[in-house]
Formats: sequence, structure tokens, C-alpha cells
Amino acid sequence: MTNILPSPDLIARLAAIVGDRYALTGQAEIAPYLIESRGLYKGNTPLVLKPGSVDEVSQILKLASETGAAIVPQGGNTGHVAGQIPRTGAADIVLSLERLNRIRDIDPIGNVIVADAGCILADIQKVAEAHNRLFPLSLGSQGSCRIGGNLSTNAGGTAVLAYGNMRQLCLGLEVVLPTGEIWDGLRRLKKDNTGYDLRDLFIGAEGTLGVITGAVLKLFPQPLGHQVGFAGLKSVADALPLFDKASSLCGAALTGFELMPRLGVEFTAKHIPGVRDPLDTVHAWYVLIDISTSDSAETAERMMSELLETAISGGLVENAVVAANEAQRKSLWHMRESMSPAQKPEGGSIKHDVSVPVSSIPAFMAEADAAVVAAIPGARICAFGHMGDGNIHYNISQPVSADKDTFISRWPEMNAIVHGIVMKYNGSISAEHGIGQLKRDELAKVRSPIEIDLMQRIKRAFDPAGIMNPDKVLKA
Amino acid sequence: MTNILPSPDLIARLAAIVGDRYALTGQAEIAPYLIESRGLYKGNTPLVLKPGSVDEVSQILKLASETGAAIVPQGGNTGHVAGQIPRTGAADIVLSLERLNRIRDIDPIGNVIVADAGCILADIQKVAEAHNRLFPLSLGSQGSCRIGGNLSTNAGGTAVLAYGNMRQLCLGLEVVLPTGEIWDGLRRLKKDNTGYDLRDLFIGAEGTLGVITGAVLKLFPQPLGHQVGFAGLKSVADALPLFDKASSLCGAALTGFELMPRLGVEFTAKHIPGVRDPLDTVHAWYVLIDISTSDSAETAERMMSELLETAISGGLVENAVVAANEAQRKSLWHMRESMSPAQKPEGGSIKHDVSVPVSSIPAFMAEADAAVVAAIPGARICAFGHMGDGNIHYNISQPVSADKDTFISRWPEMNAIVHGIVMKYNGSISAEHGIGQLKRDELAKVRSPIEIDLMQRIKRAFDPAGIMNPDKVLKA
Repeated sequence: MTNILPSPDLIARLAAIVGDRYALTGQAEIAPYLIESRGLYKGNTPLVLKPGSVDEVSQILKLASETGAAIVPQGGNTGHVAGQIPRTGAADIVLSLERLNRIRDIDPIGNVIVADAGCILADIQKVAEAHNRLFPLSLGSQGSCRIGGNLSTNAGGTAVLAYGNMRQLCLGLEVVLPTGEIWDGLRRLKKDNTGYDLRDLFIGAEGTLGVITGAVLKLFPQPLGHQVGFAGLKSVADALPLFDKASSLCGAALTGFELMPRLGVEFTAKHIPGVRDPLDTVHAWYVLIDISTSDSAETAERMMSELLETAISGGLVENAVVAANEAQRKSLWHMRESMSPAQKPEGGSIKHDVSVPVSSIPAFMAEADAAVVAAIPGARICAFGHMGDGNIHYNISQPVSADKDTFISRWPEMNAIVHGIVMKYNGSISAEHGIGQLKRDELAKVRSPIEIDLMQRIKRAFDPAGIMNPDKVLKA
Repeated sequence: MTNILPSPDLIARLAAIVGDRYALTGQAEIAPYLIESRGLYKGNTPLVLKPGSVDEVSQILKLASETGAAIVPQGGNTGHVAGQIPRTGAADIVLSLERLNRIRDIDPIGNVIVADAGCILADIQKVAEAHNRLFPLSLGSQGSCRIGGNLSTNAGGTAVLAYGNMRQLCLGLEVVLPTGEIWDGLRRLKKDNTGYDLRDLFIGAEGTLGVITGAVLKLFPQPLGHQVGFAGLKSVADALPLFDKASSLCGAALTGFELMPRLGVEFTAKHIPGVRDPLDTVHAWYVLIDISTSDSAETAERMMSELLETAISGGLVENAVVAANEAQRKSLWHMRESMSPAQKPEGGSIKHDVSVPVSSIPAFMAEADAAVVAAIPGARICAFGHMGDGNIHYNISQPVSADKDTFISRWPEMNAIVHGIVMKYNGSISAEHGIGQLKRDELAKVRSPIEIDLMQRIKRAFDPAGIMNPDKVLKA
């Protein structure tokens, strides 16, 4: 499957579908669509299309399928694996969903909201809140990421523990297929066993099987009680029984259990304005615990104090604080969310978004730390993340005063070390960011030939012309 | 795709894989594998194979793919749509998973259990309980249904509201593909965004894409508090705001919200030994409310009394009781679970397993009731089910002293009426039972040609030889 280089005539025909105003060809206006946030990838395109309706998306894909032109769907361009960036050296056409940003419907009693794919996540959260409902997906980039991208990457974030990832938050989809046909799967049903699960195939497919244009999303009642605690621990090993205690005590009220190392707390206190270490004692590890309860604020308070008291008296937690008000709750979460940006001023950072079975986290961390430091003495490991989901952002900051470029050049070597240990524990090399371009070749190494072959069969069955986001996830 | 009639030689070769003892050919020993529980379908087979290992399943499928012999996987043979029954007039070979019934592993800290596909659901529940964990899937047939069948039909049951259906309870799968290749997807990860969602494609595929041989299932902490209430209501319309109140107050602690009509309560009190009406007043509708809390029994008690008190004072509930102990809780659930068997002594019953958006339930019920009674005056509608999931078992008992066969002969006509109204509300003609043989032709009518075509493409991509459970879900 080789894509054509679009001719001036084809570019004109595609542009005519959306109208000149929404067909960008000037390099300055195209530029923001070509580079991803971390700057690791920069692509080329002769054309960015901004359709204003599902019908225009359909016409674009129909023409692309007929001619063999490659189409790269893009939402808020916040992805970390360059799935949304056109290939370098090709001439993929970017299809931006940003103008499809209408909330189509909200049914608070039925607990659903129907949104265009280009709606910004924070806007969906706000509309839900205005109806006294919660849309729980929550990410650092929520002010600019778009729900179609969240769906296409099966986004996770900080509320997965209680509410699940994007897959669990979606009831139905509308998808334009590569042929331009529209699949109307916009169902609002909690239970529907009528044939193969097409919805979950498009979710997480990173735009390689079709373009998601609309979705039915689940809403939840707004919790009445909310408590955030911050605990200092002597080891990751202690975080595991603490998580077990928290899950047993709180059940689905445990909405966050986030692990952070001392180094991360130091980085945020040093580099992020307004952040300070909430404890007056020093600990090797920290856990942020978030509890939300439906019935009353007292239930959340009681759960938090019971959890922390038994954990302190049992020796699992060395010291802890509980946020006294919403400002303090936000402040604790702000520290957690600053873990990644706080690494930037410390020089180069080699990042991994991995998961292992929750009960293997301590063993995985110990083994990975030893291997990384053996390979790069002085490397500063700042591994943090969604412990309750088994999902660790295993980031490695360069040794103090080392050369940044030399350090970054060892990215593939560090990947091989960390991912090798991840696979030993039957983990995942991409817990929440997806595959895109960044991890495509590695995917082929860590998954069995049978699994890759099944994916290729699906790709060919859905996109025989090979126009949908080619070379992402799988090599065309 | 036409399947061959297996020759005596092929039968001998297939039998040799499992050994003569586990290759059944005598009509008496084969008989139980040919008929489904309601007696609507009876199939033929020359051979029932009972493999004792995943490797034997693999050898069977490899030989079947090479020769074109059709294979029908079967678990506990409790399905309601004949997906597990060989075709009538063909010579499909039955592959029973019953000997693959080993619990492979349990990790209570990691909250997972790994089970062979042939494990009986109740056995998995028991092993989880012995480790102080809950496996929440709960069905009437749990003493005989097998987890591979639960997975293949994406089973629902009575705890979906809080825990989701089978799809939400499964982390990983092992599947033997039609070629005999084994896909090892037995991951224990809560988050894993590495390519297309193969797991959810096999779940709910009713054995048409491959044979599930093992699974990683999620476990949960055992709740400490458990309360069951039973409330009398004047209308279905009142059940909707009551459900909204219950969801808001209890959040994920609301584990059951089951709707029952007066007629169903009368049927169970009349026909099911030990069941009596729990209320001393008569009501048009009833709701069973189940609340489970993680932190303490008091929280469940407080939630239940707050919910019922505000509902009674607000006029939503006319009268209510709360079970005082485990025996009473079981007794209330026993009434709910007897709704279906209690209809049998009342003569013919035409059944539907449908779902609509939760907020459309009152309108759907009113419209369907009027249409059914207009078509069959005197028809006794006993519609009950998982209101919180939008899932109603819309069953119609024959008019008193009508002829059973004449009534049952109107099954397709009643289907057309009820399913027509379901589709008007964008509902599903099979909320939890699946498609199998019973609803296959109807599926093609209620889903768009595009959707059916996408399913056919998946089927051809995964099973080009057409040997896996042919003519189920889709027409070969």
C-alpha cells in the first residue's frame, strides 16, 4: 500500500470540499499541525483540511480512497507518540477535527452527553458540571486536547482507577470509514450484545481504521465528598499493601492513588512556582490518595482518616497530611501534575509510559532502577504515576551536568533496558499514550507475530486502500 | 463458505486428537449437547470432542481449517440464543470446553484470577471468596454456565450496574484461532494501549472468530456492607427519578436496581415455593434495590434508609421493606430471580431481552404494552429486569386459558412489534443474551448494511475457511 503524492488538481478538489478558508496551504498556517508537543517529530503536508461537518469528512475520505491520498486525522495535537503528525518525507493530508466542536445533546437523567469529536475535553467537563454531572476523564492537556483524540488513543489520566479509561467512558460512536461511508453507532445503551464490538475497535485505533466524528459519553453524578491526602513512605514496597488497604476500605470511592519519588517532589518544589513540599519530614516515596464519595462529605473524611491512621500505626506510612479545603486539594494535585514539566529544567529526560501488573510494581521498579543506573551512572530516575492502575511514567533525568544531547542519544538503549524488564513482567510498553510513530517498530518486537498479523488483517479489512493514517501503529 | 460433511476418516482423525474416551459419537451421550435450555433449537452432530488441553484445541482447529469441517464451541450449554447449538441439518462438530476447568492462578493483591475457559462461574466465585475477594459476575445459571461462554456472550447478569458486564471484568484472553494458532493475550494489565483491541473483539463474538481457552479476570475486595430493599411504586415513570436519586446518593455502591411488575410478584408468590409478597400492600410496580459498601455495614444502612425515607416522603415510593439479615436478602433476590421460571406454569411466554436508554424506559414500556395488548387482547405482560442498565426482559405470557401453541406461533409477530418500538428508541434487540441463531436474521434487519458489512469483513479476516461456528451471529 503506497500512497500517492497529491497532485495540484487533487489538492484543489479536496480544498473545494471544505472551502478555501478552511483549506490551509501556507507554510506558516500549516506549521502548528506538523510538530508534536515534545518536538520529537516534525512532518510534512501540502494541505490541512478543516471540515465543518460530518458530511464534509465523508466527502474527503471518499475522494482520498478513490485516489489513494493519505489522510492523517488530528484533534488537539497533544499526543505523545506522533500518531497525529503527518509522516516526514511523505505528503499526507492533515484532517483537523477542530471545527466539529458542538455538544450535540445532553441527557442528565440518562447520564449521557453526545459530542462532536472536535470538542475540547475541558468544554465537555464544563457542560456536564453545569448539569450537576461529572465527566471524569481528566488529563494534563484537558484545556486543548479534543475528545476524538482521547477516543482514538483510549486516553487514561488521573481518574482511571474509579471510572476507567476512555473505552469505559464511551457508549457509542459515529465513524467515517475510509470509503466515506458513515457508521452510525451513536447508541446510548449500557448493554447491547448484538454482534462484534466495533466501538472498541475504533477506540484506541489512533485513526488508522476510520475517523471518529462523534461520540456518546457516560456521565456520572457529582460526588458530594472529596478528600485528598499526601503520605510519605519509606519504600515502593510499602505502597503496595497501602494500595490494598485503600482499595478494600474505599472500593470505587478510591479515585486516585498516585506514586511519586522524593526526587520528583524536590524537582517540583524547586522549579514549579507555588509548589512546596507539603510535609516537614523527608521520605523516599510519596503517595497522593484521592477519595470521592457520593453520599456525603463525612464518608470521605472518615475513610481518609481511617486509612491514614491504620497505615501510620501499622508502619506503612511515615507521615501524612490531608488537604483541609479545595485550594489545598488542588495544590496537592498540582504538585502531582507538575512531575513531568518539573523535569525539564533538569536537562534531558528519557521517558517511558509503561504498565505492569499492580502487584509487580515494587519488583519492576527495583530491577529497572538497578539496570538504568548500571548503564548510566548518575542517571536520576524520576518514576511516578498511576500506581493503582499499574501505570508508571518511568522517566530518567540526565546525570547532573552531563551533556544533554549525549544523554538523549541513549534513548533507544534505555528503552531497550526498561521495556525489556517491562516485558519480563508481562507489562505494556505503552500504558496510555498509544503507539503512533514513536513505538511502532517496538510494538512489532514486543507483540507476537500472531498478534501483529491479526491487527494487520483488521487494518486491511477496514482500509484496503491504505489511506487512513498510514504507517501509524502498524507499518503499511 | 460451505462446510464439508466430515468423512469417517476425518472423524477418526479428530477423535484421535482427544482420545476415544473424550470423543463422543453415540446418540445418547451426544444428546445433551444438541438442545438448548428452552428447547427452541435442536441440532445435529456426528461428533462431540472434549479436549483436555489448549494444545488439543489447537490441533482440532488446525485440522478443521485444513479440511473445512465446521466447529461449534460449547461451554455449559446455558445460552438462550442457540449460539452453542450445532446447526440443524448440517454436521457441525461440537467442541466442548468442559474438561478445561482449571483455575490457573490467583493473585489477591493484584486482584486477578486466571481461569481455563471451561471453569464453572460458581467455582470461580468460590475461589475468589476463599481469598476474601469478589468476582462479581452473577447469573441465574451460575452453577452450570462456564466462563468461556460468559466471555463469548459478554454476559451481564445482576451486578452490571456497579461492576460492568463480562467485557469490563476481563483483562486478558487466550484464544485458539481457526488456523490452530494460539493468541496469548493473557495480560494482567489495567492499562495497555498497544494496538487494536483484540480482546474485546473476541469477547461477545459467540465463538465465531476463535475459541477462548483461558482468561484473566478482575477481582474486587469483598464489600463489608450489604443492604437489600424492596419498594412498591405506582408507576414505571416513578422508577426513573428513584433510580436517579439512588445513583446520586450511592454512586458505585448501588449494585442492583431491578424492576418488577405486580403480575411478576403474583406469579412468583403463586408458583415458586417459599416466595411470598414481602409487602402487605399492593402496588403496580416494584423495585429491588441492592447497595454494597466497601467501608462499613453502617454506610450501606444509612444509604438505604436515607434513600427510602426521602423517596417515600417525596411520593416516589408507596411502601418499602429492607431485609434485616442475609436470609431475607437472599429471599428478596430469590423472588427477582424467579421472575422467569414463575412464568412457565402460566402457559406460553414470548420473551424479549431488550435495552433502551435508561431515560426512555417509561415511554418504551407504555408504547410496547399498548401495542402488544392491541395485537393480543388479554396478553399478560411480565416485563422485568435490570432497570439501571436500561435492560428489560420484556416477556409476554399468554392470555388466561388461551391455546399455548397458537400463542407461541405469534412469536415472530410479537418480536416485530416489540423490537420495532425498541429500535424507535435506538435500543438493542439483544441486551445480554447475544445473537446466536435465534436473532441472526433479525440482526441483519436492525443494523445498517455498513455495520453488517464491517462485521462480515472481520469474520472473513479472522476465519477465511469459515469453520468457526458458522451461521451464528452472521449468515455465512
